[in-house]
Amino acid sequence: MDDPDFMLEQQTVAIVGLGLMGGSLAMALKGYVRRVLGVDRDPQTVQLALQKGIVDQADTDLGKILPIADLIILATPVGTILDLITLLPNWKPDGALVIDLGSTKTQICKALQTLPIQFTAVGGHPMCGKETSALEYADASMFDQAPFVLVELKNSDEKSMHLVESLVKRIGAIPFPLDAKTHDHWVAYTSHFPYLLSNLLARITPTETKPLVAGGWRSTTRLAASSVPMMKDILVTNREMVLQVLDEFMMQLREVRSIIEKTPNSLNDYLSAGQSSYLEMMTNNETQ
Amino acid sequence: MDDPDFMLEQQTVAIVGLGLMGGSLAMALKGYVRRVLGVDRDPQTVQLALQKGIVDQADTDLGKILPIADLIILATPVGTILDLITLLPNWKPDGALVIDLGSTKTQICKALQTLPIQFTAVGGHPMCGKETSALEYADASMFDQAPFVLVELKNSDEKSMHLVESLVKRIGAIPFPLDAKTHDHWVAYTSHFPYLLSNLLARITPTETKPLVAGGWRSTTRLAASSVPMMKDILVTNREMVLQVLDEFMMQLREVRSIIEKTPNSLNDYLSAGQSSYLEMMTNNETQ
Repeated sequence: MDDPDFMLEQQTVAIVGLGLMGGSLAMALKGYVRRVLGVDRDPQTVQLALQKGIVDQADTDLGKILPIADLIILATPVGTILDLITLLPNWKPDGALVIDLGSTKTQICKALQTLPIQFTAVGGHPMCGKETSALEYADASMFDQAPFVLVELKNSDEKSMHLVESLVKRIGAIPFPLDAKTHDHWVAYTSHFPYLLSNLLARITPTETKPLVAGGWRSTTRLAASSVPMMKDILVTNREMVLQVLDEFMMQLREVRSIIEKTPNSLNDYLSAGQSSYLEMMTNNETQ
Repeated sequence: MDDPDFMLEQQTVAIVGLGLMGGSLAMALKGYVRRVLGVDRDPQTVQLALQKGIVDQADTDLGKILPIADLIILATPVGTILDLITLLPNWKPDGALVIDLGSTKTQICKALQTLPIQFTAVGGHPMCGKETSALEYADASMFDQAPFVLVELKNSDEKSMHLVESLVKRIGAIPFPLDAKTHDHWVAYTSHFPYLLSNLLARITPTETKPLVAGGWRSTTRLAASSVPMMKDILVTNREMVLQVLDEFMMQLREVRSIIEKTPNSLNDYLSAGQSSYLEMMTNNETQ
């Protein structure tokens, strides 16, 4: 087999979507691949990417970029990734290796597997980010030590898997193989439902309380700043798992309500379980 | 009237409870009052406070400290503050000015107003803190620019109010006059219910998801690290307001559940309202 690092150096990589994730990836890949190309539907973003030298070439037109790429990375919101997958055979009739960076994997991976035979594909999801989505916040170091979920598909051949693993390691992340369903189940707990909590807490907090807002509220609601269209796609495409977690949470809210009201003496035990779970999750998890 | 700053310099201040809040206050007051005395039920904390020079004198025994204090600051968890108030007339028969730093105000202020005539009292709550409660995390700069709620009581005379305001400004905080009921209503939204959300989210998150935990989960659950006995007292003494917020939140959870399941196209509008509320709350609120 070819040396995957050598193979990576030979690739012309097209990143579709130059937001926080795509922009950071372009910055992290620069110099390690033959060329980095970018596509974004916003002309100002394309302009900024070129000005900053984040990409070697960029355009708002997929038709200008995709035909010259070997490796296509889909870094848009999930809904747009799903749309793009159906368009790829038109823009790139000779096929390519396709990776996506979508935050939900089941629907996307299903779609990736419907690509014609000349395509190979791998599902991806880097476990990093910020609550700010634009290119101006892009940061090559964002992937440092972050787990990067890789979903092997029916159309992921061995060569593609090696190339993608090599790319993941090259940007400083850690390949984390996982199936799409388990991924979506887990991130419903660690990311999608926490976003809903943040958003709903911000929603119900009356503005008049603002003078008393301190670090606790800010931390609990921080995710509410996330891009709404991006989060909407995520919640809709991971609907089943998110609703399952929501129902579980609702049950706990009812339980703690009853404890506070009727048996406050057992509140210590109840809250200690949550504290222990938090501390357990944080053990050896400080640097990610 | 006397110059309140001059008056502050004349005070022998006893801080009961040398945790994060009491310890930070002792550090911030050192040098600006005649003497800083400390009481803590934990001998090691007393020892540490003396070793670090945070207090001029400290003891585990209230009877050694309170009789020589002019100004008594109650900086223990809320339940202990309520117990201490009933004991004050025994330990300090000649009276004093009493301030508390409890996170809920209605029950405490009611109790403070039952003190005998030789006492004056003011309810207090500095809007700052960390999720770590011990003296070792104490930090004199914690109060910088933080709103410091002051509740004027039936037994707060003008001289006491001036002295307390002078103390608040001296440690870098901003006096924020408020009545006990409004305080408890607001902090249920900004602090107590957010803690419950954090704790419950940590509780339901399966440990197996740990490899996928990133900044979002950590931020949303951070408050779950808070001291459980401290939070239990807070939730129990602010039960009515916390349950009211919980019910309001539960209604929103049911609404968003129905939107995700039945009318996902209106999810954008629903989530945008939470995002706007978050951004509005954060405007000019970055530094607190």
